[in-house]
Amino acid sequence: MEPAADRSRRNFSLLEARALLERTPAIVDAWLRGLPDEWTRANEGGESWSPFDVLGHYIHGERTDWIPRLARILEHGTAVPFDKFDRFAQFRDSAGKSLPELLDEFARLRAGSLSALDAFALDEAALDRRGQHPALGEVTVRQLLATWVAHDNDHLVQIARVLANQYADEVGPWRAFLRVISGQPG
Amino acid sequence: MEPAADRSRRNFSLLEARALLERTPAIVDAWLRGLPDEWTRANEGGESWSPFDVLGHYIHGERTDWIPRLARILEHGTAVPFDKFDRFAQFRDSAGKSLPELLDEFARLRAGSLSALDAFALDEAALDRRGQHPALGEVTVRQLLATWVAHDNDHLVQIARVLANQYADEVGPWRAFLRVISGQPG
Repeated sequence: MEPAADRSRRNFSLLEARALLERTPAIVDAWLRGLPDEWTRANEGGESWSPFDVLGHYIHGERTDWIPRLARILEHGTAVPFDKFDRFAQFRDSAGKSLPELLDEFARLRAGSLSALDAFALDEAALDRRGQHPALGEVTVRQLLATWVAHDNDHLVQIARVLANQYADEVGPWRAFLRVISGQPG
Repeated sequence: MEPAADRSRRNFSLLEARALLERTPAIVDAWLRGLPDEWTRANEGGESWSPFDVLGHYIHGERTDWIPRLARILEHGTAVPFDKFDRFAQFRDSAGKSLPELLDEFARLRAGSLSALDAFALDEAALDRRGQHPALGEVTVRQLLATWVAHDNDHLVQIARVLANQYADEVGPWRAFLRVISGQPG
């Protein structure tokens, strides 16, 4: 009998990463468009982020992080470090905008990012090229693109967690069976 | 200056819960349909679940958990406990099925569940009715329905976490900034 393959890790694939990145705007659209504001502006207390805030953060990433950093590496290698990423830009940039506007903006920007990615026509050598992160030191194009995918999903986790926890009290004794609420595997 | 409202909890609302429940099939459809099998069958190692397994679990819930338990309460109150829920049924039921088949089946079953929910025309008194959970004891209709919502989102967390962690190695030093991978707030 063959041993089961390890299904917990994938090697980076540009084609697969692109397929995952392309889906994110449609996922958040299906999830959030038309929900009452009380849900899209819900958070986990204090300064924690709402789904609305996450959308603004995605948008800021499209504008200043992923493709600009890729371009920086391809143009300058490690000679010019990345600009720092502002994790709080969305609180300024999203002010006065509606959730549907943010969804539309994210979809438009992500499509543009993927067109830019395609235009770079990255080969294996390009994926190995190195840039300089201001805090983390040397990183590769491959790591940048893998992080883009993981980052999308990190904030999808956040959206689901924020929404689930709105009913942390209302679920009553079922709390024990809901990992997202109890913090324990359910 | 008024104190900020608590945005971390919502009181249960049948209308809002329905709006959230209605979205889940479209969310997983946008997320998973057309992805390579290596991603939809990915897991977190060992006996942990893949997105494919989660879909089967959602389907089993539609068939045996949410509406059947609601009907049990409305018919029998606490006199007849719920049937136990089989958390592993999907490994049997999904065998030989394709991911698109599961997506279609879940969408069809969820739509039927919501029609059944509507047909019960639950009022506040009905939401307070009590049933008997085989392990948790007395629970209310309100708690059951809130749990349905939280449970959907609990497994959306799981899907995002499984996908993000496929690149846990490929992200390199960015691991430190990705909460879903590091386990720390990023």
